[in-house]
Amino acid sequence: MTLCGDNLIAGAWRAGAGAPFTVQSPLDGAPLPGTFQEAQAADVDAALGAAAEAFGAFRRTTPEQRAEFLLRIGEEIMALGDALLDRCHRETALPRERLAGERGRTVGQLRLFAQAARAGSWVEACIDTADPTRSPQPKPDLRRMLVPIGPVVVFGASNFPLAFSVAGGDTASALATGNPVIVKAHEAHPGTSELVAGAINRAREACGLPAGIFSMLQGSGHALGTLLAQHPHTCAVGLTGSLAAGRALLQAAQTRPVPIPLFAEMASVNPVFVLPDALRQRGGPIAQALCASITLGVGQFCTKPGVIFVVSGPGYEDFCTALRAAIAAVVPGSMLHGGIARGYAQGLRARRALAPVALLGAASQEADTNRTQAAACILTVTLDTFLAHPLLAEEIFGPCAIVVSVPCSADLVRAAAALPGQLTATLYATDADVVQARELLDQATARAGRIVFNGAPTGVEVTAAMQHGGPWPASSDARFTSVGTAALRRFVRPVCLQNAPAALLPPELQDANPWGIWRLVNGEPTNKTGLP
Amino acid sequence: MTLCGDNLIAGAWRAGAGAPFTVQSPLDGAPLPGTFQEAQAADVDAALGAAAEAFGAFRRTTPEQRAEFLLRIGEEIMALGDALLDRCHRETALPRERLAGERGRTVGQLRLFAQAARAGSWVEACIDTADPTRSPQPKPDLRRMLVPIGPVVVFGASNFPLAFSVAGGDTASALATGNPVIVKAHEAHPGTSELVAGAINRAREACGLPAGIFSMLQGSGHALGTLLAQHPHTCAVGLTGSLAAGRALLQAAQTRPVPIPLFAEMASVNPVFVLPDALRQRGGPIAQALCASITLGVGQFCTKPGVIFVVSGPGYEDFCTALRAAIAAVVPGSMLHGGIARGYAQGLRARRALAPVALLGAASQEADTNRTQAAACILTVTLDTFLAHPLLAEEIFGPCAIVVSVPCSADLVRAAAALPGQLTATLYATDADVVQARELLDQATARAGRIVFNGAPTGVEVTAAMQHGGPWPASSDARFTSVGTAALRRFVRPVCLQNAPAALLPPELQDANPWGIWRLVNGEPTNKTGLP
Repeated sequence: MTLCGDNLIAGAWRAGAGAPFTVQSPLDGAPLPGTFQEAQAADVDAALGAAAEAFGAFRRTTPEQRAEFLLRIGEEIMALGDALLDRCHRETALPRERLAGERGRTVGQLRLFAQAARAGSWVEACIDTADPTRSPQPKPDLRRMLVPIGPVVVFGASNFPLAFSVAGGDTASALATGNPVIVKAHEAHPGTSELVAGAINRAREACGLPAGIFSMLQGSGHALGTLLAQHPHTCAVGLTGSLAAGRALLQAAQTRPVPIPLFAEMASVNPVFVLPDALRQRGGPIAQALCASITLGVGQFCTKPGVIFVVSGPGYEDFCTALRAAIAAVVPGSMLHGGIARGYAQGLRARRALAPVALLGAASQEADTNRTQAAACILTVTLDTFLAHPLLAEEIFGPCAIVVSVPCSADLVRAAAALPGQLTATLYATDADVVQARELLDQATARAGRIVFNGAPTGVEVTAAMQHGGPWPASSDARFTSVGTAALRRFVRPVCLQNAPAALLPPELQDANPWGIWRLVNGEPTNKTGLP
Repeated sequence: MTLCGDNLIAGAWRAGAGAPFTVQSPLDGAPLPGTFQEAQAADVDAALGAAAEAFGAFRRTTPEQRAEFLLRIGEEIMALGDALLDRCHRETALPRERLAGERGRTVGQLRLFAQAARAGSWVEACIDTADPTRSPQPKPDLRRMLVPIGPVVVFGASNFPLAFSVAGGDTASALATGNPVIVKAHEAHPGTSELVAGAINRAREACGLPAGIFSMLQGSGHALGTLLAQHPHTCAVGLTGSLAAGRALLQAAQTRPVPIPLFAEMASVNPVFVLPDALRQRGGPIAQALCASITLGVGQFCTKPGVIFVVSGPGYEDFCTALRAAIAAVVPGSMLHGGIARGYAQGLRARRALAPVALLGAASQEADTNRTQAAACILTVTLDTFLAHPLLAEEIFGPCAIVVSVPCSADLVRAAAALPGQLTATLYATDADVVQARELLDQATARAGRIVFNGAPTGVEVTAAMQHGGPWPASSDARFTSVGTAALRRFVRPVCLQNAPAALLPPELQDANPWGIWRLVNGEPTNKTGLP
């Protein structure tokens, strides 16, 4: 499959006006085919202008049309076959098997959002009927529903080249709700991005939808990102990235003449608390499960457990022994790109330079830096050291974690209370640990988006009840999730019609409820036709 | 009733460390009793510190406890009797009758939020049950609900000294969901604020709730506001105010080390579109209804219709004649304070200085500036002039509006498309206007929070379906409302529990659903006990 290297702007592939760039495989440093054209201000203008124009027609499409579009995108992605997995593997070093799984998740997400679009209840219709006899003023008829907001800019993520990139959850949730999407492809996998953008474009053509509803721009660096976030037609931004990138884009989004919402999923150490009885009963298996979670995908998951609090009582030594043995056996893997591998090495060096930080264990096999590899390792500190060095509570992206030994179980609560916002918090606890677990749950509730019991935090289910997002710096807006159907809510806003003539009501708000959606009518949920 | 002039900090009245200040009545310039002590950094620290500490206990209170607290606040406000209305009337110049109505609305809001707290369904519980047999990975049990976020800073509004101030909708929705509140009283009605803060404090004592959950600080100016928005313990900010104030506070909230959400309801001209058949059939009555809406409360409503688009065809002259006659008869009223009266005069002067702006009509009686009065007036311009001068699309707070004469009904759509975000848009239309009305509705949907048909936009129902908030500059976050039960959503965030032991689940997420709340269980809304 040949790559053109161009940007996709409203249905047309056009060479960008910026500097050309190429990529090397992190697997072996070999240059990969394709020369990509960086988008510039004129490209951004063209993509956003077309998106704003297409929005008028796109937001009037039916749920069925949008559902078919999403399903067709999934089919077109599958139709790319092994060519997509091969290119993606060479660009990201992620194993083909993992990528096949991620592709399944991506297509599954598109299906789930297609279902949600078709079901239609995401508009959260709410109807309060009139009371013309009310005194002193008659009560009006009020009907509210969610509507799309306009062009959404999505930044591809390096660590999920399919599920959080060109056709990932941000794109799917924006399209499902009727918003045009402009993707800024991640510069580490431009070929994968081009292939997936082509799939989306073919699906769009097949569904007869306006060209402006989807564009994909290649490029790197802050300048292009800032142009996109500050363009007057941009209505929202979604990304998964570093804290620095998230903060810079938040600044760009909020200092515009018209500030816009930004949804950045950023940095988290995903603390784990191993409670005393759980430690005693099954410290070994817990250590093995944690090792697998820490090193999954070379530690490049946003939910990787980065800090593990363990009471240094009965079972502590066995836990450490098991963790040391498990980590020793982990084979070094290639990271996504050289920048991430260097960041990992630097992050470890900075922490190990703190005198009271010790090495608990490390992979026995050395990393091959020519293959962008990272070796797993576990550091250890006392709670006092952890609390004295805020650096230890910052994320390191890669296959490492810090075990914090804690004098007693009350100190677990003290440790939790000192942490910043998190995507997840994990508790290993038995029934005998319930009292401490309740206190820890309370602390975790105040600072994490998802709280996992007796299992690893990696592995994020794509369902209605999922919450992937937490207080700063885990994400920029803890009120929203970037995974699961609730992710739809990021790109919509409510509009209320007061005393609207029946002829002007959209189907979602008509008395007859022709689509049978769930609505809140005079305070009661119902999916019946007609009004009480 | 004697006023102490102090700040209420976590249950104790303490003199502020800042400069003392007094107020004059806008009715006659007479100095009003009471010397108020401006709060300083130490007071902010004390209030926020106590709030953060009290949060731990307050978020664990039951829905019933919070409901009782809100109801008791309403009772304590009513118990203030005429003393509250008298002081408020003298401080704001708002008529006693209006204030009695606003007090009724304030107490009604507290009751509505008490009901919502008690019903409990606001937590939007969502449960996806486990599937241990799923391959390749078992599906975990996921249960999500909304939880409070922490101390909320509320800025009192000048134009609703009761319903949007110390015990207004922001305070009620924050307390209903378990968040401590720190109110910055509006400097134009410090006496009213002190009285209402006392009522809240007595209710809190009677309900045995921690002192830190409510504080009220006196003072004026940006410095105190910025201190409050930037305090590390502040978790969200709510206000109704000017665009300048909203932008400054948004900046303060977003440039903190940990950015926080800000909900500012700011500026709107609330455009009105009078469609051709409606104009022909009932131009006169529409003009009278609009005059009443423009001048209600001396034009000091955020939903005041400020720009009226009318096709200059059949019925246009009669409409103008009726509007001129109605406005001439409006008796000048005292505005809230001198600053607002001066702003109104300046706003009118700036617009009239644009050569192509004509005076359509004005109140026949002159305003008495010693009584802070404003006289109503209507300006008129052509659509071309309106489109050429962005100033004409900016809000003037006060009893005036601009009639924009539009050549044909297609131009109404063009006019709508040129407008910035709005709280409301209003369409006067008959069945014969349905084609144009549909296009206008489409434009209005893209830029307003509430769209009113055949009635005035002033008068905001407090119900579940209300949306009071719209795209910038109408409000800082169009996804939320500051009126109605959905206002609760501003001060909460979702937390998901994964595979939590039954003993640790809060009642809202327990299988048995002991409180009978509405939940989304495996995709279906239900309020039944037990799980499928």
